[in-house]
Parts: sequence; structure tokens; C-alpha cells
Amino acid sequence: MSLTVHILNGPNLNLLGQREPEIYGSETLEDVARSCQTLGQKLGLAVSLFQSNHEGVLVEAVHAARGVAAGIVINPAAYTHTSVAILDALNAFDGPVIEVHLSNIHKREAFRHHSYVSGRADAVIAGCGVQGYELALLRLARLLER
Amino acid sequence: MSLTVHILNGPNLNLLGQREPEIYGSETLEDVARSCQTLGQKLGLAVSLFQSNHEGVLVEAVHAARGVAAGIVINPAAYTHTSVAILDALNAFDGPVIEVHLSNIHKREAFRHHSYVSGRADAVIAGCGVQGYELALLRLARLLER
Amino acid sequence: MSLTVHILNGPNLNLLGQREPEIYGSETLEDVARSCQTLGQKLGLAVSLFQSNHEGVLVEAVHAARGVAAGIVINPAAYTHTSVAILDALNAFDGPVIEVHLSNIHKREAFRHHSYVSGRADAVIAGCGVQGYELALLRLARLLER
Amino acid sequence: MSLTVHILNGPNLNLLGQREPEIYGSETLEDVARSCQTLGQKLGLAVSLFQSNHEGVLVEAVHAARGVAAGIVINPAAYTHTSVAILDALNAFDGPVIEVHLSNIHKREAFRHHSYVSGRADAVIAGCGVQGYELALLRLARLLER
Amino acid sequence: MSLTVHILNGPNLNLLGQREPEIYGSETLEDVARSCQTLGQKLGLAVSLFQSNHEGVLVEAVHAARGVAAGIVINPAAYTHTSVAILDALNAFDGPVIEVHLSNIHKREAFRHHSYVSGRADAVIAGCGVQGYELALLRLARLLER
Amino acid sequence: MSLTVHILNGPNLNLLGQREPEIYGSETLEDVARSCQTLGQKLGLAVSLFQSNHEGVLVEAVHAARGVAAGIVINPAAYTHTSVAILDALNAFDGPVIEVHLSNIHKREAFRHHSYVSGRADAVIAGCGVQGYELALLRLARLLER
Amino acid sequence: MSLTVHILNGPNLNLLGQREPEIYGSETLEDVARSCQTLGQKLGLAVSLFQSNHEGVLVEAVHAARGVAAGIVINPAAYTHTSVAILDALNAFDGPVIEVHLSNIHKREAFRHHSYVSGRADAVIAGCGVQGYELALLRLARLLER
Amino acid sequence: MSLTVHILNGPNLNLLGQREPEIYGSETLEDVARSCQTLGQKLGLAVSLFQSNHEGVLVEAVHAARGVAAGIVINPAAYTHTSVAILDALNAFDGPVIEVHLSNIHKREAFRHHSYVSGRADAVIAGCGVQGYELALLRLARLLER
Amino acid sequence: MSLTVHILNGPNLNLLGQREPEIYGSETLEDVARSCQTLGQKLGLAVSLFQSNHEGVLVEAVHAARGVAAGIVINPAAYTHTSVAILDALNAFDGPVIEVHLSNIHKREAFRHHSYVSGRADAVIAGCGVQGYELALLRLARLLER
Amino acid sequence: MSLTVHILNGPNLNLLGQREPEIYGSETLEDVARSCQTLGQKLGLAVSLFQSNHEGVLVEAVHAARGVAAGIVINPAAYTHTSVAILDALNAFDGPVIEVHLSNIHKREAFRHHSYVSGRADAVIAGCGVQGYELALLRLARLLER
Amino acid sequence: MSLTVHILNGPNLNLLGQREPEIYGSETLEDVARSCQTLGQKLGLAVSLFQSNHEGVLVEAVHAARGVAAGIVINPAAYTHTSVAILDALNAFDGPVIEVHLSNIHKREAFRHHSYVSGRADAVIAGCGVQGYELALLRLARLLER
Amino acid sequence: MSLTVHILNGPNLNLLGQREPEIYGSETLEDVARSCQTLGQKLGLAVSLFQSNHEGVLVEAVHAARGVAAGIVINPAAYTHTSVAILDALNAFDGPVIEVHLSNIHKREAFRHHSYVSGRADAVIAGCGVQGYELALLRLARLLER
Repeated sequence: MSLTVHILNGPNLNLLGQREPEIYGSETLEDVARSCQTLGQKLGLAVSLFQSNHEGVLVEAVHAARGVAAGIVINPAAYTHTSVAILDALNAFDGPVIEVHLSNIHKREAFRHHSYVSGRADAVIAGCGVQGYELALLRLARLLER
Repeated sequence: MSLTVHILNGPNLNLLGQREPEIYGSETLEDVARSCQTLGQKLGLAVSLFQSNHEGVLVEAVHAARGVAAGIVINPAAYTHTSVAILDALNAFDGPVIEVHLSNIHKREAFRHHSYVSGRADAVIAGCGVQGYELALLRLARLLER
Repeated sequence: MSLTVHILNGPNLNLLGQREPEIYGSETLEDVARSCQTLGQKLGLAVSLFQSNHEGVLVEAVHAARGVAAGIVINPAAYTHTSVAILDALNAFDGPVIEVHLSNIHKREAFRHHSYVSGRADAVIAGCGVQGYELALLRLARLLER
Repeated sequence: MSLTVHILNGPNLNLLGQREPEIYGSETLEDVARSCQTLGQKLGLAVSLFQSNHEGVLVEAVHAARGVAAGIVINPAAYTHTSVAILDALNAFDGPVIEVHLSNIHKREAFRHHSYVSGRADAVIAGCGVQGYELALLRLARLLER
Repeated sequence: MSLTVHILNGPNLNLLGQREPEIYGSETLEDVARSCQTLGQKLGLAVSLFQSNHEGVLVEAVHAARGVAAGIVINPAAYTHTSVAILDALNAFDGPVIEVHLSNIHKREAFRHHSYVSGRADAVIAGCGVQGYELALLRLARLLER
Repeated sequence: MSLTVHILNGPNLNLLGQREPEIYGSETLEDVARSCQTLGQKLGLAVSLFQSNHEGVLVEAVHAARGVAAGIVINPAAYTHTSVAILDALNAFDGPVIEVHLSNIHKREAFRHHSYVSGRADAVIAGCGVQGYELALLRLARLLER
Repeated sequence: MSLTVHILNGPNLNLLGQREPEIYGSETLEDVARSCQTLGQKLGLAVSLFQSNHEGVLVEAVHAARGVAAGIVINPAAYTHTSVAILDALNAFDGPVIEVHLSNIHKREAFRHHSYVSGRADAVIAGCGVQGYELALLRLARLLER
Repeated sequence: MSLTVHILNGPNLNLLGQREPEIYGSETLEDVARSCQTLGQKLGLAVSLFQSNHEGVLVEAVHAARGVAAGIVINPAAYTHTSVAILDALNAFDGPVIEVHLSNIHKREAFRHHSYVSGRADAVIAGCGVQGYELALLRLARLLER
Repeated sequence: MSLTVHILNGPNLNLLGQREPEIYGSETLEDVARSCQTLGQKLGLAVSLFQSNHEGVLVEAVHAARGVAAGIVINPAAYTHTSVAILDALNAFDGPVIEVHLSNIHKREAFRHHSYVSGRADAVIAGCGVQGYELALLRLARLLER
Repeated sequence: MSLTVHILNGPNLNLLGQREPEIYGSETLEDVARSCQTLGQKLGLAVSLFQSNHEGVLVEAVHAARGVAAGIVINPAAYTHTSVAILDALNAFDGPVIEVHLSNIHKREAFRHHSYVSGRADAVIAGCGVQGYELALLRLARLLER
Repeated sequence: MSLTVHILNGPNLNLLGQREPEIYGSETLEDVARSCQTLGQKLGLAVSLFQSNHEGVLVEAVHAARGVAAGIVINPAAYTHTSVAILDALNAFDGPVIEVHLSNIHKREAFRHHSYVSGRADAVIAGCGVQGYELALLRLARLLER
Repeated sequence: MSLTVHILNGPNLNLLGQREPEIYGSETLEDVARSCQTLGQKLGLAVSLFQSNHEGVLVEAVHAARGVAAGIVINPAAYTHTSVAILDALNAFDGPVIEVHLSNIHKREAFRHHSYVSGRADAVIAGCGVQGYELALLRLARLLER
């Protein structure tokens, strides 16, 4: 039976594929969901993807993963830098957590260099574009094998 | 007639009693509500307890207390450290405000040492676990006597 | 045909006119909407005004303005100082953005001196009270003429 | 009888219209003076405009406004960030003060984010180009009505 | 048999009741001692109260509590912010420690926001006036029950 | 009848005149006491001088001045930079306070540039050697005339 | 014909597999080389792996990659935080660069949170153990496809 | 023959006596000049007083004192905190320099706590109002006796 | 025909040769002017040298160079560290700018390590004494050849 | 005749041997005194050891060593980080001073990394437990030989 | 059989005895090696001494000590303040580590106050000149006895 | 007989002329050597040029200059900002040292604004491209004349 993995996405990621396609590519979040599910099947992982622009909804999405998901992939987007609430929610989740950023946040404004979530995440993958989600699934699969 | 007191709780506190019971005890937020209501009756206070994971909902819960509640007990949890919006809402509330934290936030990560809410609160009670709510009610009762 | 302008308002601004009228005047946000619409008509702008206490809702209000509004006037209130998410949403909006604050935030607490939104805004108008919205419309009108 | 308003301009603003016209437009400071005087007439304000590259001369221009001008509009330019002397002079002026910047200083180098003058100004208008002077007059007119 | 609790008070608290009674009330430290002893009797705690203006004497008062007192309530007053020596003494005490401040130190000067003692204290109660001592005893009683 | 003035001296000042006489001169604290008493007589001030190496004793010396002395001259020496307790004691003293330093502390190590006492003192006289005490008395006399 | 990829490793990584195998696993750098070469073959990449404890040798290894390698994977280890020289060398390399860290450096000491190399890297993968090298190759392959 | 002393005054001090007389008294700078000259005669000092709002003019006033004045009393006012040029000019003056501030600058805004001039001054007298000039002359007289 | 170069000098440099000749040598600014004009002739540059102690005058000297001088050599002296106005003036000058300091400012007080002008200058020459002007001319000549 | 050495010990060191013996060993301060006296005899040093919890008493103990002791070994304990008064006292002592810490203070909390005393001490020995006193005597003996 | 101890020395220490002999004495590193070997024999320690100016070579010298040396004495010299690589190498060494500095680094430039190595060292001995090596051996001998 | 001058070059400078020729020109380090030797001959200086990517090798190159070279020109490149070891080596060299940077490091990333070497260098020449070496030789020649 497959293990379940939740991929959580923060604010503004609903615009993926519409905004600056020359940078981020033309894939939408739905495309990401599909390709992750395909990869998940190969890895024996049931993948579901969720997006919200609301900090509180993301906190509750992490709560909902407790006892349900074996691992979490999270791209907290702007909340990376401002949300202690999501950090605390992740602290109450027992499985592995992989943090993903589409861009290399360390090359951007100084306020994007600090991530509250990194204090909890097992791994951080930044700057790999939408491929970052796939790399995160590959890492989760390896961790969940153990 | 009893004065009304609102006890407001921030993100992740809905998990109280489920998470790390060896630290926080096995009391849930419902248990807290019941014991506070019992204590409130002795003190002549009508106590209602509210929790939300959403910053905006907490802001509106403070608005709702205007003209209704004589005092507020608030455990802003993670929003303690990041929410100017809740601070501003409390600034528009006229009665006394007691800030409660279950743990002693000064013994935790550096980013938990600063509280926006403390700039408005009349008193701060940290590290008393769920008993902190009762101590806050005792303080409010004394303040409201005047 | 008129160009559309969205005026977005952040947390606690629903209390305008009720709180500290000696400072902010007794005009409510509805009064502001009416006077801005009147001014808008003179300037050939169709003005709509929106308020929310929720960061995520404001993010989505900015999204909703994409392809619809020619320009945005935003008073992010407390989220000015804490929301990278609103900044990111505004970064995905193509038209001009004018940031408005009722008070002169540079005369208040140190944490109110920094605005994430200013990194994106074309102009900032602070300390003009509710008249600030009208000045912002005048600026937008000039920019949209070009 | 008209109230008098002084518009004071700091260093390098004598070059307005000659430097980077694609950014600042081709209007000179004389053009600004004329359009402000025209607007002033409509608002019942006698407007005079002054520029100096010298900090001390600007200090004395503020002194000269005492007992003469009902309000001051000031674009301190580079002295915004370095002059406590102009701040102190403005502290000795009783009427309203509006601070104007042609560009949005918050989008420029970090040392331009701090303004000594903002600690005294009633309002700050930044990033509206030369229209900022007109918006400032509109604000002054409203304040002086009271 | 009662457990013993020591209430230790730092510099200037000997003036309690004489200084700014409109803020701190007219109760003296002797009054506090009496009301704490009364409350202690109800809680099964033998309470003794001590005050000194000398850092070294307070260090030795903590030493004297070793093996004698079951818990300590300490209001280090000004030494809160400057004494590593009292922190080290408390680190050598085995029982629970409750830190009390009459005022909400987080609303005062910045140098009062940091407490060396909080790094050792189990709980911190600030801004409850002299009632803070009683709340601290209630907390100690609960902790000592275990 | 003469008004009383207390001159309080902090740690290591008992060595005055013995240490580095080429810098501080060969006058001892006793010489200072005598010359200040002589000057005091001219000014109608009864001057007494006190020195202690103990922070707590200095706190109590300030307490002892309450209701007795019309003004305090204090050279807190090393405690200038580290004692909140002396600041708090001075905050409980009603009359004028003049802070004196023998050397110009702003030309020495960085940690000597900050004085807790300056937050309370009416005036600060630094770098005038032992003459500083006389200048402080002259200032006190002027203030007490009012 | 395969594109060439150089995997460069910084100081102390020669100890991989010998040190703390319960954390880092028992794979040595030679094992990593082999598994990366195997993966490289699938991806059409000729992979060579190099390690040095010397900053200057690593600088020269980057120079050697110029005109030879299509991309670089680099785990700068301790030099991540201290070497501007390696950053400058990478700035003179034209192809994509992926930065890899075995552990999540953001959960370790504060001085490990800053990476000079991140200012140049296209992507950063941290906390994925030795699998990080494979994920980096997958990313490089995707980038080199373009 | 008398030694000459120059008393130099910085920006806005020409307003002395006109501004906030309840704080600074009603004495003007001319009154200060007269009373200082009277005191100077007793002390055998020929005193001349100068004021300018211009940093460069003050620099040149210090130059003019070289070889002419035996000592300088300077109240740099706002330039205290911003002028390296006046510091450098004073560094080229050989005699003693006494820095005077009317108010206790350490009780005002943080940016007023640092003085460039203090790095050169022999003594600093702050918070003694206009009497500070007289105290400075007394100190200079003592220094020049040697 | 010769290209024109302006050498601008900031405050206190009029004292050159009179102050600390053992350090700076006995050459005056007039000597510098002569030797630079001689060197200029060899390099095909018409050199004029200007000094002022006034920030505003230096700003205007930069304005005067617009359209007249092919390049500027500037020793801003104390204004190096405090003048945004001179920086802004230089930003409005199109040709090359070489910044000169007689001493190595990086070996002096910390506040001398930062130069506003360096953000605009093409080159910086510090610590070469008066020879620095000649080196700057040599650099300008090379740049203007292109 | 033996030279005299004073070993001064700060607050909480009277508990040595009673507290955390698994870390600090079971030797008391009396044991340290004895073993240092034995070692002193071999080195020709008359050793006396003193402990106080009072900053002022330690200041006076340093004063008492003037003219009596040839050198001082000092373990200021908590006062290391907070006492300018002990630093000043040591500045008035002419002989060599060796600073000793039982633990390696650089591995503990950040506030323990800074020592005021190190600004005066000739040597610092940290992390050698009670053997640190013996090493300090060996160093003193070598210094006093010269 | 003797235990082995490696004494590692960082950059510029090869110049010992040649440079500033009035400060550091005329002993060379070879002299230090000899005296340490003599002392080592008494203590039952086989001592070998090594010096390199190369960070990478020092890293490898630490690696070489793994499984060979029972303890390390290290004087990292300039690399104390800049080398994370040496810290990481020492973290992979199991025995005790004593850090030695010839001078008291806390009395020198601020950048010398921080040591990366101190985060790993068991003890730090600074300011004892070349005797520091002997004291370190005495400490190591005591630790290795256990 | 000619005096000898060593020109030392840090990491990545071996790429000079190959990298970004439009910025740095097409001259290689060999070209620089030749033109410096030609200029050296005119100035009576025997010039040798050396480059290394290794910090330790550069340290030893400075050692090798002791007693051989009359002066050093050094372009430490990336080690400017990170090497205390090179600073210490230069501190052991007796002759004049000129620091050269091809680009104006003050216009680049913040971490390039600080130079350890500047604390020792007699002069700093930045932003003059390869001509900077020639200017440095001219300065050295002048210094060595004395």
C-alpha cells in the first residue's frame, strides 16, 4: 500500500505558469500535481497537492496531515520568512519535511535569506524550479524506505 | 450581573492535550474552557474561550470583544512574535488585556523573546502551563474590581 | 470608458470612524468609498474599495485586480510591516501601485518605519489622513494618462 | 486674504529638468513654482518657492518662515538623510510641515530609507514626481482650513 | 508539614508603598509578606520574604535556600537586567523558581526587556503589581504538588 | 538655613589622589570634600560627601537622601555603565541630580560611552577632573534657587 | 557524446563514511563517485569527482573546469562560509552550478547559515545526505537539456 | 594681558530666548555673550561669542581661532551629531576645547547620544542650560592657569 | 586642445602644509595646484584646483563642472563620510570621478571607513599623501584617452 | 623571601565541590587553597585565597592587594561579564594579573563570551577546571622571575 | 608506553623568535619543540610539533592525528578567527584539544576576540607566551590520566 | 643598485585577460609583469611579480620578501576580505606596503567593502584596473626615496 505525501504550497503559487513564464516556465500548479503524482506512483507514494494564500489555512493543512501523511513537501513561499505559526504546526508533525523554493532565495533580497521553516525541515531544495518538487519526492521516498 | 471576559487563543492551540502531553499535560482547550468558566463563576466573570489559527479571525475576535467584554485574556501563540495586526486590534480595545504563554518563551529560540502584544498588554504570564489562564483571570478580576 | 482602480485596505481599518475620531476624524470607510468614487468620476476612474482583516484575502484581492484594474491604491495597515505575501502579490500586478498610510508611520514605533510594500509601490503617501486616498487617486490619474 | 506657504528645496534640485528628464520629466523648478502658484491661487494660498544647496541657508529659510508662513512644504533632498539642523529648525516652526520626495526613497539605497525630517513632518509624500508638490499643497490647504 | 518558600526581592523594593502609590498601590513589602503568608497557609506553604539592595546578599540568599526551600519566588528588580551572579546562584538551586515583576517590563525602556533570570526561571509573571506574588505562590503550589 | 546636598561617589574613587596623580592630580576625596564644603558655604549649601565601592550601599545612600537632601551630585564611576539599581534609586529621588565624571568618558572605551544614570540626571559634567564637583554644585545652587 | 560534470568537494569530506556513520551513513566519497557515475551514464553525463582540503586547490579545480565541464556540483563544506576565493572562481565559470550540503546547514550554528557560494549557485540542495549529489545531477541534466 | 576665548555656537541657537522660553529661559544669545564677557573679565579672559547656522562657517571659525584664541567653548547644536568637518577643524586647534549642550542630550532621541566633537573635547557639559557656558569658562580658566 | 580637469577639495584642506607637516609634508594646496598643473600639461589636461569648507559650495562646484570638465578629482575630506548631497551632485556629472584621500582612511576611526562618494567614484586612491592627486591625474588621463 | 600572590574568587565559587561534582570535581575552594599553597611553596610564592559574592568586596580585595601582592590570580565568575568596577580596580594594580575560568566560557551562552577583565589581564586560562589555578601560578612565577 | 600528543601551529608561527623578540622572546619554534618534548617525557607524553602556513595542511594534520594522538594542542594563529575547516577537522577528532595563543587575544583588535576553535576546544590558554604550550601539556596530562 | 619590489597577487588573478576582457582589458598578468618591470627600471626598482591561489603560499611569499624586498605591492583579491594570516605576515614585514584592487571594491557587494589588509597597508589604490599596479610603483618609489 502506498504511503501518502502532502505537497503544501503557500501564497501566490496559484499564479504559477501565468506569471513570468520565461523564468518559471509555463507549467501550472496543476501540471506540477500531475507530474508529482506520476513520479509518486513510481516511488510508491500517493501524492496530493494543496495551495492556499492563507497562513491559517496552511497551518490547518499541516494539522490535517498529522496521522495521515507519511511526509510533507512544503513550499511556504512568502510565509517562509514571516510565519512562526507554520513552523509550530510543522513541529507538531512527526514525519519528514522537505522545504522547497522555486528560486534560489539566497540570491534575492536579504529578507528572503532567513527561513523559519528551515529550523524544522529535514532538507531544503532551492532554485530548482518546479523540478524541486520531484527532487523532494525522491528524497522523501529514500527517507521513508528506512 | 457578571462581567464578560474573552479568552482568545492563537494558532496550533487547537492541538493542546494531543501534542507532547508529558510537557503540556493532557488537558485540552475544552478542559481549559471548563475550568476557566468554573473559576469565572467564583470571580463573578462570564468566561468564553475562542481559538483560531487565522490571524485575521483573531483580529476580528478582538473587534467583537469591543463593547462586549470587560477584559481579554490572550495567548497569541506564534502570532505573538509576528502580528502587528493583533496588536493594533488590541490597541482599539479599551479594557485590560492579559497576555498568557504556556511555556516560558524567554527560554526558547531568540525570535520568541519578542512579543508585539506585550507593548499593549497590562500583564504577561509565561511558563505557568494551562494554569496561566486561571492566574490571568484572577488578575483580571482584581483589575475589574476597581 | 473609465479605467478601474481598486482601493485595498488592511486589518483594523473596518473600525475607521469609530476609533479615536478626534485623531482620524469621524469618516468611516464607507464615507471614504463614496468620496473616492465622486473624485474618481471627475478623473474618469471607476473606483471600488475593499477591506479585509485577513492577509490571504488581501493577497487574493490583489490577484483579482490582475487584468481588471488599471491601478491599485493600498493601505496595508499592520500588514505593511509583516507581509511578504502581499508584496509578492503586488509584484505580480502590472499597473501602478500607490501605498497610503493614514498616519505618518515614521513618527511612530520603530517597527512601523519599515514597509515591505514600499519596495514595490510607485509612490507612498503617509500622514494625510483619509485625504491620502484622494491624493493617491490624483497621482494614479496622472500616471494612467501617460 | 491668502495664507502664505513656503516650498523649500534642498541640494541639487536646481538641476531639475536638466538631469535625467526621462525619469523626472523636463519640468524645471521654475515650472514647478508656476504651477504651484496657480494651484495655490485656487486654494487661497500664496505660494513662494525657494531652493538652496546649503544646509545652513535652508535652516535660515525655515527660520524666515516663522511668523510669516502658515505652512511649509519641504523637499530636503540629500539633507533628508543627514541633517539634524533642518529637523531642529522645523521643530521651531509652529505650522504644519509636508515632506516631499520626487522618487520613492524606500526603493533606493538603504541610507535613503531614513529621514530625519519625517520625525517632525505631518505628512510624507514620496514617489509622485513633481506632482508631489501639488498633492502637498492640497494637504496643506485641508489642514489650514481647520 | 508545610513546604517552605522563599520570596526574594531586589534593590529599591524596600521603598514599596512609599513611592508612586498611585501606580504601585500603598501596600508595603511588609503587607506583601503578610498577605503571602496568609495565602501560603491556605496552600500549605511556609512563606518567608526577604529584601536586599545588594547583589551579593541576594546571591547568598539563594544559596541559603538550597536544601531549605522547596521553591523560590524572586523579584530581582534592577538586577534582573544586569546580574549574571544571581542567575548562576539560581542555577545551583534545585527547586522551581518563579520570576515576578510588578510592572510589565516589556512596556518600559529597551534595557528592561531582557532578563538574565528568565533563562533559569520556570515561569515569569509581569505587570500584576503586588498580586503577582500571590499568583506566583499559586503556581509554586501547583508545581510542588507534583 | 542651608539646603543639604549629598555628593555620592562610586567604586575605586577612594583611591583618588593615589592613582595616576599626573592625570587626576594629587587631591584626595577628602580634599574634594573640603573644597566642596567651602564652596557650599558660599552658595548656602550644606555639603556632605560619601564614597562606597558597593552598588547596594550606593543605592541605600540615594534612599537616605530622600527627604533629607535638596539635590544630589553623583559620580557613579564604574557603576555608571552597569547599574540599573542606582538609576532606579535616583528615579525615587525628587530633587535635581547632577552626574559627574572626572574624565571625558566619551574618549575612552566604547562601553564607557553609555550611562544608565544619564537617563535620570538633569545635567552631566564630564572631563573637568575634580573641578567637576564644584561646577556641579554651582549648577545645583542655580537650580535650587528657583 | 556525453557532457562532462565535475563534482567538487571541500575540506574534511575525505573522512566521509568514517565519521559519524549513524548520521552520514557508511558510504565513502568513493561510493558517492561510483553511484554518481552510474546515474550520470543514465543521464548522458560524464561525471568526475574531486576532493581537496585546500581552498586554493579548489579554486584551481574550478579553473580547470572552465571550457571542460558543462556544469559543476560543489559541496564546499567549511569553505561555504569563509571562501570568497571559491565564489570568485565560480563567477568565472560559465555553466550552471549546483551547491550541495549533506546536512541542513540552517539547523546548525548561526555561522553556517550564510553561504558565499549561494550568491553564485543556480540551486542549493541541503540536508539530503549523499543523495544530494544525485539530486544535483538530476537538476544539472535538466538544465543542460535546454 | 587677557587670554582670548572663543565661544562658538551652531545652528538654530540664534533663536535662543525666542523658542520655548519656559524650558530654555528667556535669555538670548546676546545675553549669554554679555554674561560670559562679565565672567571672563573676572577670570582674566577676553571672551567673544559667535553663532552660525552653516557648518562650513563654523569650520572656518575654528580655523580663525588658531593662533588667536587660547581655548574654545563650542556648542555645536545639531552639528554635534553629524559633522566630521568640525571635528577635523578642532583637531587642528591646539588649545583646550569644552563642549557645551543646553539640554542633557542623553535623555533625548537616540541619534543625539553620539557626539563627533566629544572625541576631541577635553570636557563635556550637558544639561546646564545657558549656565553651561559659564561653567565651561570656569573650566577653561582653570586649564589655562596651568 | 586640452581637456579640463577639476580638482575639488573639501573642508580643512586649506590648512594643508600648516598642520602636522611631519605627517602631511610642508606642501600647501597652492603647491599641489602648481605641481598638478605641471603634470597636467604633460598629460594634455588643463587642471584647476578648488577648495571649500562648505558642503553646498562643493555641491555647486560639481554642478559647475558639468559640461565644462572632462573629469573630476575629488578629495571630499570630512564630507566623504557625511555628505549625500555631494554624492548626488556627482551622480549628475557624466565624466570619470577619482576620489583621493591623503591618509589611509581605513586605518583611522571606524566612522572614516565608509565613503558616500565611493558609491559613485570610478577609483579611490587613499594614503598616498599629496602624491595621490598626481596618481589620480594619471588615471584620469588614461581613462580620457579612450 | 617569598613574593605574595592573591587568588581572588567571585560569586558562587563558595559552592565549589558541592555543585555538579561530576563536572567540577569534588574539590572545594579550601582544597584549592591548600594545593595552591603547596605549589606556591615550590615556586617561592606565598599564596592566599579569598572568595566573595560581593562585587564591592572584590573591588576592595583588589585595592588591598596594592603594595602587598606581587601578582593576582582572579576568577571573577559571573562578574567577569558585568563588572566594570573590578576592571577599574585591577587597572589600579601594578603587577601581573591572570584571569582563570573553570569552564571554557566560549562554549557557553553568548553573554559569557565577553570578559571585562580580559581587557586588563595579562593572560586568560579557561576550561582547565581547578587545575587552572595551578597553571596560573606557574605563569605568575615565570612572570615574576623577570 | 607514552601517549602521543601533537602540537599544531598555524600561519606565521615559523617566524617565532625572529619577530619582535622583545615581546615574544627569542625562543624559536624549535626551542619550543625541545622544551615541550622534555616536559612531555616527565609527563609520560610523546610530543611532536608541527607548523604550517596552509589551512588545508593543518586540516590534514588534524586528520593525521586521528587514531594516533591521544590529544592535540593547537595554536591556530590567524586561522583561529577565520577557519571553519579546522574546527570541522577537530570535531572529527575524539581526544581532548587545548587551544593556545601566545598573546591575550582579547586585548587586541575586535576581530581577534572570536575563535571558531573555542567552540570545540576543552580549554583555552591565552597570553602566556611560549609557556602556554607547557601549561597546555600539563592540562592534557591531567585529562589523559582519567 | 636597484631596490627590489615584490608584486604579490591573490586568487583568480591568473585568469586576468581571459575573463571579462571588456571590463578588465585583455592584458594578462604577464603583460602586467612586463610593463611594471619597464616602469620599475625608470624608477630604479627591480620588480618581480608573483601570483598564487593559495593563502598559505601568499603568506610565505610575504615571508620571503623579508630582508629581500624594499617594498610590497599586493592585490590580495578575494583574500582581502577573509585572510587574517596575510595581514599577520605583512605585519612582520618592515617596508612600505601598497594595496591594489583592479575594481572599486566599494561599489560591489557589502562583504567586499572590508579589507583586513588595509589595517596594515600604507596606501590603497582601487578601481584603476591594471594601471593600479603602476600607480602603486610610483608611490613606492616616492616612499623609498626618503
